[in-house]
Amino acid sequence: MTNTESATAIRLSRVSAVLLEADVGLLLVTPSADLLYLAGYGGHASERPTVFAVVPGQMPVMVLPKLEAPRLEGRDDIEIRSYGDGDDPHDLMRSFLGDHFGALTIAVSDQAWASVLLNLQTLFPTASFVPASPLLRQLRMLKSPEELNLLHEAGRRADRAFEGVVGLRFAGRTEHQMSDALDRLLRDQGLIRADWGPIVASGPNAASPHHMTGNREIREGDAVVLDFGGVLEGYQADITRTVHVGSPATDFVAVYELVVRAQQAGFEASAPGQTAGSVDRAARIVIQRAGFGENFIHRTGHGLGLDTHEEPYLVEGNELRLSASMTFSVEPGVYIPDRFGIRVEDTVAVYEDGPQRFNHATRELQIVH
Amino acid sequence: MTNTESATAIRLSRVSAVLLEADVGLLLVTPSADLLYLAGYGGHASERPTVFAVVPGQMPVMVLPKLEAPRLEGRDDIEIRSYGDGDDPHDLMRSFLGDHFGALTIAVSDQAWASVLLNLQTLFPTASFVPASPLLRQLRMLKSPEELNLLHEAGRRADRAFEGVVGLRFAGRTEHQMSDALDRLLRDQGLIRADWGPIVASGPNAASPHHMTGNREIREGDAVVLDFGGVLEGYQADITRTVHVGSPATDFVAVYELVVRAQQAGFEASAPGQTAGSVDRAARIVIQRAGFGENFIHRTGHGLGLDTHEEPYLVEGNELRLSASMTFSVEPGVYIPDRFGIRVEDTVAVYEDGPQRFNHATRELQIVH
Repeated sequence: MTNTESATAIRLSRVSAVLLEADVGLLLVTPSADLLYLAGYGGHASERPTVFAVVPGQMPVMVLPKLEAPRLEGRDDIEIRSYGDGDDPHDLMRSFLGDHFGALTIAVSDQAWASVLLNLQTLFPTASFVPASPLLRQLRMLKSPEELNLLHEAGRRADRAFEGVVGLRFAGRTEHQMSDALDRLLRDQGLIRADWGPIVASGPNAASPHHMTGNREIREGDAVVLDFGGVLEGYQADITRTVHVGSPATDFVAVYELVVRAQQAGFEASAPGQTAGSVDRAARIVIQRAGFGENFIHRTGHGLGLDTHEEPYLVEGNELRLSASMTFSVEPGVYIPDRFGIRVEDTVAVYEDGPQRFNHATRELQIVH
Repeated sequence: MTNTESATAIRLSRVSAVLLEADVGLLLVTPSADLLYLAGYGGHASERPTVFAVVPGQMPVMVLPKLEAPRLEGRDDIEIRSYGDGDDPHDLMRSFLGDHFGALTIAVSDQAWASVLLNLQTLFPTASFVPASPLLRQLRMLKSPEELNLLHEAGRRADRAFEGVVGLRFAGRTEHQMSDALDRLLRDQGLIRADWGPIVASGPNAASPHHMTGNREIREGDAVVLDFGGVLEGYQADITRTVHVGSPATDFVAVYELVVRAQQAGFEASAPGQTAGSVDRAARIVIQRAGFGENFIHRTGHGLGLDTHEEPYLVEGNELRLSASMTFSVEPGVYIPDRFGIRVEDTVAVYEDGPQRFNHATRELQIVH
């Protein structure tokens, strides 16, 4: 049995137990982190559907296009059913899933395409369909030691890319150029490009937290938010640092240090037994007390693993209790319209004896040129 | 009115007509090429849903996370409804869509996440949901002159990257290294990386058409399939060339020339009024007559535009009639297990007076070193 097959076997036996307990007769997983997690194969989302069917206690079945089937060659823990370009994959699913699932509850991975779900609903008209994430999160939120190691190593590699980028010239280059430079540093570390790419937001652009990297030329006096990561064997890095081009004004430094303190407060609150919402509150109250509550316009963080965003979400009202081996970002920010934005983010893991950072790049303000 | 707004206005008026004719009361579009096409904004698929609601004859509404709303600043052709991290976007949708859509047919973009569709089905329990692609393809398949220009220019840039890559050393480098090199050549041309990246498949690996680029070292005597592209203002390039490292054997050259002839036959068959399936047949028969029919294991091509794969699909049985301003790949291949694969692909556009290629890189076998 290969490593992939043994990890898959453990996860499949756990997911079977979860399905049985929730009275879900069939789990259908399409290309996504869910598929990579359960089958050790991420698949390829396209108009040619890939569907992984898990029935508790049975060998799982992968339906996929014939020309992608060679990717699973040699796997004897999964039954492969492939179809050609002229065939209807839904006929194939009907043939082996039968119609005895008609009265059951079927869970579908959250990121399945709507077109796939609509076809499945036609195929099983009396079944009740539910999203898979409330079932799978019980597994995916709790990282194994191997997963924690990969996330930590991915974080370290992103740190090294940050150490490289602060030595580069910023002034006179565009956001796109800095993003490309950072991307190359990340690749040099052996990280595969994340689908969101390095975000570089400079000057007033940084006041929009989800700014799209553009062609603005970075100038002396700008603060620049660098939000970046990359993928190591499927696992994500995610770190943000805000640097300043040339000497910063005193009021900028004061807000920067405030954000660092808020990040530290969120980090310290990331203890087993605390709620996800309480981490958000811990970071937010620091910023609110300094009078910038209105300028912290997003949640404090999100889970991180095979997906860049996954559970747990650190947001007010989330009563989910943290427990050891959960991993998430802690990333408060302050955004002053038309002037600047500041965000500081580390990936954090919860252990029994408290939180650990998976990023170790300095959080002291870096002055670049 | 900006260019984006005027293109959007034209497309929205056309889609309204299509919806009225199909008796579809509401079109819900999530982040995808559909969204970019209709709203001039592609959005960001995540656990924080973005939904663009189109009701014929009304101003369209974009529901999106508050922190992404600045991306649509200044757009007065779209009503923006944003929600914060603590809010429920479905409450927001219920509030302005009301429950009078309960009895209607609602079209949802094919690539919407299943979790979004399941929420919408809960919100509108008596509505009937259908996929949007059968409605939108009538618009998206027919490219405007501006779209054709962008696709042609994207193709030319990919051609130049191919001209660059044949000058590089192949022998002794891995598939990943050649993919990275090709990626840089594509970026140097101003193309944004396609989400599938350059596929490099060497030697026996190339016998699997959807091979994932790996760490195999390329050797003298290998055929190498290079399938690559990139994005120019949203529009895709897609070209495949097969090169040979060092002198090829006579039987390889014979199969290579066969594939080029099949590609030419598919190209010539791409005339207005012909069916999509007939283009597949035209290419396939050339390969079948030479005795390699069993080795051409995929359809002949796929539409290309804002999506890498979109309608029309060139596959046996597709009775869709081609018409002027449709664009698609023509990419026959022959795959000999354990030995080699050969594929030759150009992007092709249909015009009233016949087809045109959007790739002009030589189809003569290139010997590399």
